[in-house]
Amino acid sequence: MEDNNNKIRIALDAMGGNFAPLNEIEGAVLAYKEKSEILDITLVGEGKLIEQHLKKIGFINNFNIIDAEDIVTMEDSPSDSYKNKPKSSMRIGLELQSNGKSDAFVSAGNTGAVLANSTLSLGKIEGISRPTIGTPMPSLKGGYSMLFDVGASVDCKSRHLFEFAVMGSVYMNYVLNIPNPRVGLLNIGEEENKGNEVTVKAYEILKNSKINFIGNVEGDDILCGKVDVAVCDGYTGNIVLKFAESVIEILKYKFKEYASRNLKNKIWIGMFRNTLRKILKEFDYQNYGGVPLLGVNGVAIIGHGKSTSFAIKNMIFRAVDMVKKNVNNKIKTEINSYLNNNK
Amino acid sequence: MEDNNNKIRIALDAMGGNFAPLNEIEGAVLAYKEKSEILDITLVGEGKLIEQHLKKIGFINNFNIIDAEDIVTMEDSPSDSYKNKPKSSMRIGLELQSNGKSDAFVSAGNTGAVLANSTLSLGKIEGISRPTIGTPMPSLKGGYSMLFDVGASVDCKSRHLFEFAVMGSVYMNYVLNIPNPRVGLLNIGEEENKGNEVTVKAYEILKNSKINFIGNVEGDDILCGKVDVAVCDGYTGNIVLKFAESVIEILKYKFKEYASRNLKNKIWIGMFRNTLRKILKEFDYQNYGGVPLLGVNGVAIIGHGKSTSFAIKNMIFRAVDMVKKNVNNKIKTEINSYLNNNK
Repeated sequence: MEDNNNKIRIALDAMGGNFAPLNEIEGAVLAYKEKSEILDITLVGEGKLIEQHLKKIGFINNFNIIDAEDIVTMEDSPSDSYKNKPKSSMRIGLELQSNGKSDAFVSAGNTGAVLANSTLSLGKIEGISRPTIGTPMPSLKGGYSMLFDVGASVDCKSRHLFEFAVMGSVYMNYVLNIPNPRVGLLNIGEEENKGNEVTVKAYEILKNSKINFIGNVEGDDILCGKVDVAVCDGYTGNIVLKFAESVIEILKYKFKEYASRNLKNKIWIGMFRNTLRKILKEFDYQNYGGVPLLGVNGVAIIGHGKSTSFAIKNMIFRAVDMVKKNVNNKIKTEINSYLNNNK
Repeated sequence: MEDNNNKIRIALDAMGGNFAPLNEIEGAVLAYKEKSEILDITLVGEGKLIEQHLKKIGFINNFNIIDAEDIVTMEDSPSDSYKNKPKSSMRIGLELQSNGKSDAFVSAGNTGAVLANSTLSLGKIEGISRPTIGTPMPSLKGGYSMLFDVGASVDCKSRHLFEFAVMGSVYMNYVLNIPNPRVGLLNIGEEENKGNEVTVKAYEILKNSKINFIGNVEGDDILCGKVDVAVCDGYTGNIVLKFAESVIEILKYKFKEYASRNLKNKIWIGMFRNTLRKILKEFDYQNYGGVPLLGVNGVAIIGHGKSTSFAIKNMIFRAVDMVKKNVNNKIKTEINSYLNNNK
């Protein structure tokens, strides 16, 4: 390895995604090729396999390898995975960070397990009681808004929604460079008294905070560019996220089915394929590359199980950004300034 | 008026939708033309205006008119509308039913107000504590599934989700003719112990009921044809519904925007317009025509504010179906058989 002073140390779970370790290794290589001067990547997983592949493609001298004998699978129970698989690539990758040997962790593995392992290995930021996972939603006006929470925390109190708003706001501001991001509370109507008990109380807290709170927003406001950060409990957010992902799949299927009905349709859809692809592209998570787990005392980036090497590369860059911009310190300051004001 | 024995008596809120009373009157005429032998329609609203228009189009002798001096607007608070506007077309239309002078009520007005006025005017079915509003979702395999609840009840206990499942199941079976409908509990994972406190308890109740309960389903299962009835609290359901409606609008906008970039794109999209329209048509609520408010002691069909006369016609036919098939009696039997088993 070269001299690593001032480099950002990324631990990559090489066994995470559905196409591990291939896509992970190739993703690491893509990232390295682009930003070798700032990257110090450690691949954690089946050492021999990783070594073999790196040798084959001629990059054996550019990465660290740490052997991990176990793998957290998509079927593993998130809550048990930490205890039952202490030698998993996930836990070992995260413990590098809690031991000060790494700055960030990246995984395309079991989302719930990354959440559980990260929270247990890294702990939580002071003042944050519930970590959160956000997801980008394409905006009508270009760019993305972010939806928090999409499944990290399913039983939420108003205080938790407020924490999501603070974390989402900081992320949007410092990582995605949207100054003074507009935060909306996802609800069933715009009026202050709308919604369930939790949202009514959350409205009150948000209104009196320093957040740029624009009030309640509805389901049809998520994509239309009205907000930069939309906040809801993880049960609702997860259902909206999975529903959204399925819509694009359904549309693609419908177009295919239409094409299959007769030759005329087939030619028709065939002619239009590239245009369709261009229009649907913005809805593709691959371009985005991973979502942050916010609220843990460290950096963890979670990717889709289907992540391509291109997505893995973007996840690594996302992690670099999180470290460089010191997002956690900003979250800590923001949440504690609120706590101090409300003592 | 002709002899009305054995006809189904529909009270139509002529002042409900955004294009009232025009679309309402024209919709009533469309329904009458198609099924005059079974329909006895009363238009409730601004009497003179309705009379004038019916005369103009030559249908003055085919409908009853009841004058109502007030209108519930889209801006009115649902909870206050009953008390504050006792002479609204909505309340008068519903009271015809509670007084035994009508069999069903149809309105494209303020959804929350129809819910509140119906519950207060008609009362609830014995054994049902929370009425529910469902919405059709197009299914990948053709036809529709239904999502309950989409906003009638935002703070739900497990018992309420069970009630939605019973009502949804009966509606799907008897009105939409899907025998033994598959009911899924909307959740963030398939395993029995997934979700928030409410869904975990609801799973337990549903598992032990006579409902054809297929277990937890996720957000991406709604459109894929895995369930006939998907159940969740009204907060989540409302957000999913509005999100879904917005996706189609966004796609239409994206196609338009793409077309506007240059002449080539414009010609391209123009050529493809009809195909697109055909494919997106299934997502169009107009074809469906109104959703039932289930759980009230009577029949109330709610339509979109933007309902066309075609949608109003379909809403009237939906109401006829609800009456003919005696849906409420079936709900009563189902829910009470459960209550008796669990005494």
